[in-house]
Amino acid sequence: MGLRASIVIGCVLLAASPAFADPAPPPKPFPTPTEIVDAAPKADWAPIAIDDLLVMDLAPDRDGSLRRVIIQLMPPPFSQGWVGNIRKLAAARWWDGLSINRVQDNYVAQWGDPDSDDKIKARKLPEGLAVVGEGYKTGGAFLDQIARERKLIAHDPDLFGMNGFWAGWPIGYQSLGEVFSDLDGAWPIHCYAMVGVGRDMPPDTGTGAELYAVIGTPPRQLDRNIALVGRVIEGMEYLSALPRGHGALGFYEKPAMRVPIQHIRLASELPAAEQPHFEYLSTESTSFAKYADARANRRDPFYIVPAGGVDICNVPVPIRRTR
Amino acid sequence: MGLRASIVIGCVLLAASPAFADPAPPPKPFPTPTEIVDAAPKADWAPIAIDDLLVMDLAPDRDGSLRRVIIQLMPPPFSQGWVGNIRKLAAARWWDGLSINRVQDNYVAQWGDPDSDDKIKARKLPEGLAVVGEGYKTGGAFLDQIARERKLIAHDPDLFGMNGFWAGWPIGYQSLGEVFSDLDGAWPIHCYAMVGVGRDMPPDTGTGAELYAVIGTPPRQLDRNIALVGRVIEGMEYLSALPRGHGALGFYEKPAMRVPIQHIRLASELPAAEQPHFEYLSTESTSFAKYADARANRRDPFYIVPAGGVDICNVPVPIRRTR
Repeated sequence: MGLRASIVIGCVLLAASPAFADPAPPPKPFPTPTEIVDAAPKADWAPIAIDDLLVMDLAPDRDGSLRRVIIQLMPPPFSQGWVGNIRKLAAARWWDGLSINRVQDNYVAQWGDPDSDDKIKARKLPEGLAVVGEGYKTGGAFLDQIARERKLIAHDPDLFGMNGFWAGWPIGYQSLGEVFSDLDGAWPIHCYAMVGVGRDMPPDTGTGAELYAVIGTPPRQLDRNIALVGRVIEGMEYLSALPRGHGALGFYEKPAMRVPIQHIRLASELPAAEQPHFEYLSTESTSFAKYADARANRRDPFYIVPAGGVDICNVPVPIRRTR
Repeated sequence: MGLRASIVIGCVLLAASPAFADPAPPPKPFPTPTEIVDAAPKADWAPIAIDDLLVMDLAPDRDGSLRRVIIQLMPPPFSQGWVGNIRKLAAARWWDGLSINRVQDNYVAQWGDPDSDDKIKARKLPEGLAVVGEGYKTGGAFLDQIARERKLIAHDPDLFGMNGFWAGWPIGYQSLGEVFSDLDGAWPIHCYAMVGVGRDMPPDTGTGAELYAVIGTPPRQLDRNIALVGRVIEGMEYLSALPRGHGALGFYEKPAMRVPIQHIRLASELPAAEQPHFEYLSTESTSFAKYADARANRRDPFYIVPAGGVDICNVPVPIRRTR
């Protein structure tokens, strides 16, 4: 992902700017997306609240290395019933000792209780979880508000209709007109690394205890059909590079193949010194607009033909650690 | 991928159709894409020529399992200069003992000579490789011909313009009109599992010795900027689930992390009994049209809202082994 590269190169730029340094070289006529991100002023970056981070530690790999996956939870008004449940499940240490049970190539990696369908062996859910219905999109009033506040940055419409960026997230939306109907609303988009809630056939059967991350081609058919609750912002490779399962739907055929979860915690519960801190390139900033344009029209020297467009899922929002 | 599932379920259907069996149940009103593929008559499947298959065996994994990746090469008129070079390189055993050197999350896995930039250590290329220029798309006459022959199956236009399926491959194209200009032509699309030719800045620097496979979000910015020469049709997970590299561009930082290639062979060079055989669901068949429609509009019971469209890269052409 570009995230790691932007962190590294960001440090290089910092190191190259001591007092009395030579003046900066003139900007290139056609910088790469990464160069645009690295040149973005600090004011164009926005912090991610510690309260919105979830830390999943998998069992160390065979070399003994830590495998930590950090997830940013979606802000209101999206999917908050499920997000609230996830906070409760993490606070109750509900996932500790469970596992990643399904890795389907070019689709999803999924974790939770492998015995959830077994009435005797299933781990008991904590009290007080919300039963959430079909709340897979907002009402139209939300669209009206963020459009008025200029917080909705439209991107090129795609096969699925309108889409754009809001507060650092890719969203689809419908009918941004003067008068809103029940059909209007906005919803998060299934891009790479987005995290969603597994469910059975009835739409109200997903609690948030069973989660998945997208590890391939954006499965846009799931938009508005499943709740998206966040995205992986660090450690994505510990999910995307897991061995694939060969049972139906990519479930591991043998329990020994499952990948143990040591624990999932709210980052705010970690000791202060261990808490990770991140910021994202504000999707309302000039730097982000330049970055998105460069991703749609690569004119840096490697390229012969600029594409003239870019899928919203191929404009990953730059996110970096601050410490 | 859906490929494996369709093979398995296909076997179940066969087993359930003995003589004197109960009559088949009536078809479901809204079958899933997999159900449509499994119900496709044999006449809707087309063989893949053994001459178009390349077999890459990686070093066995830590459990000793074989890791075989099978690649289907692109047919004429696409990228044939590079495809010809790849045939020569395989016949010369050029890749044997080289390695996968770069795995960048959500982008590509890339293999070839890790010392290719070192004039002393670089492995010598075989004689007679073609130097191929910017042949990243066909001329307009090809479009004219396949449209007249009804071999171009148009798909919904996307952000990048026109696209569709031809002879089992996803292609983009431009200006399918009565009169063709130099700007017209067709080109393969960078979907998941497509295989392309790494190159340096000048467009004529890729020989085919350095190859990559797409392991994430379709990088459509590369269309018309890099030669696509084929796609992985079996064993994709042995590339997509490799550990990610943490050097620049996802190169492995230490030589020991590289994944050794035992050998790459043309499948036609294997002993007859070991040759793999595949067929694909003809993209001109009624079954494929139904399958593509179902992927665009899921109405089977899990879904609440059909998407109303589907990216061409989210319509993977069904491919299965025949033996």
